[in-house]
Amino acid sequence: MATRADLAPLSVTGRIARLRGLLGEVSGAAGPMGGLLVTNPANIRWLTGFTGSAGILCLTGERALLTTDGRYRTQSAEQLAASGADDQVAMVVGGVQVQRDALAGLLAGEPVVGLEADTVTWAAQRSWDELFQGSEVVPTRGLVERLRVIKDAGEIARMEWAAAIADRALEAVLPLLTAPGGITEAAFAAALDHAMRQGGAEESAFETIVASGENSAKPHARPGGRLIGPGDPVVVDFGAVYDGYRSDMTRTFVVGGEPTGELATVFAVVGAAQQAGVAAVGPGAGAAAVDAVCRDIIAEAGWAERFEHGTGHGVGLDIHEAPSVGAGSTAILASGAVVTVEPGVYLPGTGGVRIEDTLVVTDAGSRPLTQFPKDVALMRSPR
Amino acid sequence: MATRADLAPLSVTGRIARLRGLLGEVSGAAGPMGGLLVTNPANIRWLTGFTGSAGILCLTGERALLTTDGRYRTQSAEQLAASGADDQVAMVVGGVQVQRDALAGLLAGEPVVGLEADTVTWAAQRSWDELFQGSEVVPTRGLVERLRVIKDAGEIARMEWAAAIADRALEAVLPLLTAPGGITEAAFAAALDHAMRQGGAEESAFETIVASGENSAKPHARPGGRLIGPGDPVVVDFGAVYDGYRSDMTRTFVVGGEPTGELATVFAVVGAAQQAGVAAVGPGAGAAAVDAVCRDIIAEAGWAERFEHGTGHGVGLDIHEAPSVGAGSTAILASGAVVTVEPGVYLPGTGGVRIEDTLVVTDAGSRPLTQFPKDVALMRSPR
Repeated sequence: MATRADLAPLSVTGRIARLRGLLGEVSGAAGPMGGLLVTNPANIRWLTGFTGSAGILCLTGERALLTTDGRYRTQSAEQLAASGADDQVAMVVGGVQVQRDALAGLLAGEPVVGLEADTVTWAAQRSWDELFQGSEVVPTRGLVERLRVIKDAGEIARMEWAAAIADRALEAVLPLLTAPGGITEAAFAAALDHAMRQGGAEESAFETIVASGENSAKPHARPGGRLIGPGDPVVVDFGAVYDGYRSDMTRTFVVGGEPTGELATVFAVVGAAQQAGVAAVGPGAGAAAVDAVCRDIIAEAGWAERFEHGTGHGVGLDIHEAPSVGAGSTAILASGAVVTVEPGVYLPGTGGVRIEDTLVVTDAGSRPLTQFPKDVALMRSPR
Repeated sequence: MATRADLAPLSVTGRIARLRGLLGEVSGAAGPMGGLLVTNPANIRWLTGFTGSAGILCLTGERALLTTDGRYRTQSAEQLAASGADDQVAMVVGGVQVQRDALAGLLAGEPVVGLEADTVTWAAQRSWDELFQGSEVVPTRGLVERLRVIKDAGEIARMEWAAAIADRALEAVLPLLTAPGGITEAAFAAALDHAMRQGGAEESAFETIVASGENSAKPHARPGGRLIGPGDPVVVDFGAVYDGYRSDMTRTFVVGGEPTGELATVFAVVGAAQQAGVAAVGPGAGAAAVDAVCRDIIAEAGWAERFEHGTGHGVGLDIHEAPSVGAGSTAILASGAVVTVEPGVYLPGTGGVRIEDTLVVTDAGSRPLTQFPKDVALMRSPR
């Protein structure tokens, strides 16, 4: 397994202060929100460095407290020290009641307390509402997620390395698609996943999609027992995780030669749309405008109805995070945002094509983290 | 990839009727619950066969409706036909508003409507509450989960096959632990995951744990860059997924020979506890009693504080599902339940040992689905 000790360090410095600056945006009947319970694990990781499966971060204007259970006693202490959060975040480690008492104590006297409504379950909300009896409990949406949109150097370095692991893994296994006897979608997906792990990935960034032949026309196909054969289009959508950060890339190939007929036109149109979408990414660009650039080219070819998903999405600790790159998005891209551009056209009977890169927005425009070439034809190696 | 066409078929027949029988258990101020929104994907799959990532099942005393979006038009129709749900469950496929209108229409006039409080987010609950304006929206907990406890022949056959895939994969990769030069935890975990995929697993049942040497003393260690060497205890906790159903098994080995000193005692005690726990599993046994049998043996050895997790849990479509097998559990085991028995002792400085099988409760007692031998010493093959 390759590890990289030379990447820019991950540091959470300043993040809690920035979140504190947003608390007053939310209000209840009793006034502005004075405390927030962060329960989304990716948000807790981003704010403190803690990666355990059970933890709650409580933030007020003056204090921050992370609670977890005995399984994570050592790990939480180590991770908060490594991230630099340990001088701002107090820790309570213990059973459920110990944690609840500590949280109730910290929030006592806060008139308005927020919960992350998009991840906290209704059952949990009812339980917190009962615990924080003197407070009004209000829903919050996307506060930490909004801050996570802009990645720092340490985050970008990890996503770039994840993308490099994925690039190399695809290069290593691509000859399997043209090997004598062929290979099934499921076996090719397993080989690609394994190559990423061997290359240093913690895991695959999501369930790898390998969709061949008629399956390529389904954007959400799961790899199955279909044997990939000559002439088949093959959509390969996959990514790696390195130190928690994810990559995302799609390439579509044709086994044994260049595409012909309508499929050749699909490749040309999707390729042009993707290139135009990539060119539209830059600081100040509207995410909806990036979507429109791709959608217009596909609509001009008569396939508006066959591009049935958004153009892209943010990537980071989560595979899908803010901003959305779609028709309804109000996001304006800024330097440090990381987004995908992935138009596709899916024609039942003919096949589907999707091409996707992950780009980091820079001061000058954008830079692709995914570098794999976009050659379509897969020829058998001469020897 | 090995697939099994000969397994007993999966059929959902009768499940919706059984759930209907539970609706009246829950009441609001306005009377008994007349409609239920099922939003937990595993529950939807169990009730209808539909496996898409976006679906809502709405149930009343008379009607059942599954809504999803256009990506799953074909798949949902195929899966409801295959499961036998299509004659009881109507389908609405469309955008968000189309789905919401259909659900509101179905529930109009129901005084009390339930949501699954342990999986629905607070934000979603608020949105449903607004949509179902004429109804009182009440929380439900564990209704479908309770029905899922008892597995039928088709479900048990899939879990047994998943366990067989895992057994064979471990056998195939075990020599890597004694190979010259050693192997890291992460590389061994990757090899095991890959062997399961090659053997027909859809994916690993959870993130495979490989914890060696001092890491073995942490029950929740993640596989890392540590090189596994002679004399190390190695905890391997893993499982496979086949047709949605999961297996779960732990074995602990010692590289290069039998354990010595305190570690030998730990192996003996955990082995005895696990054997006694397995023997205690049967129809009519209390899950808490199974836990107590294991815990007493470990406590007698003086390590009560070093067995810091429950004895086991149910397994099925989810890796952790009802019933819990722990001190606080009120569950009584019945024929068809599938549970793990996995006591462990974790001694910082010495190492940790956990041994786990997945068992199906039978009329006569129980039968292990995981069959891998419990030999501890890993010797290098003579050639």
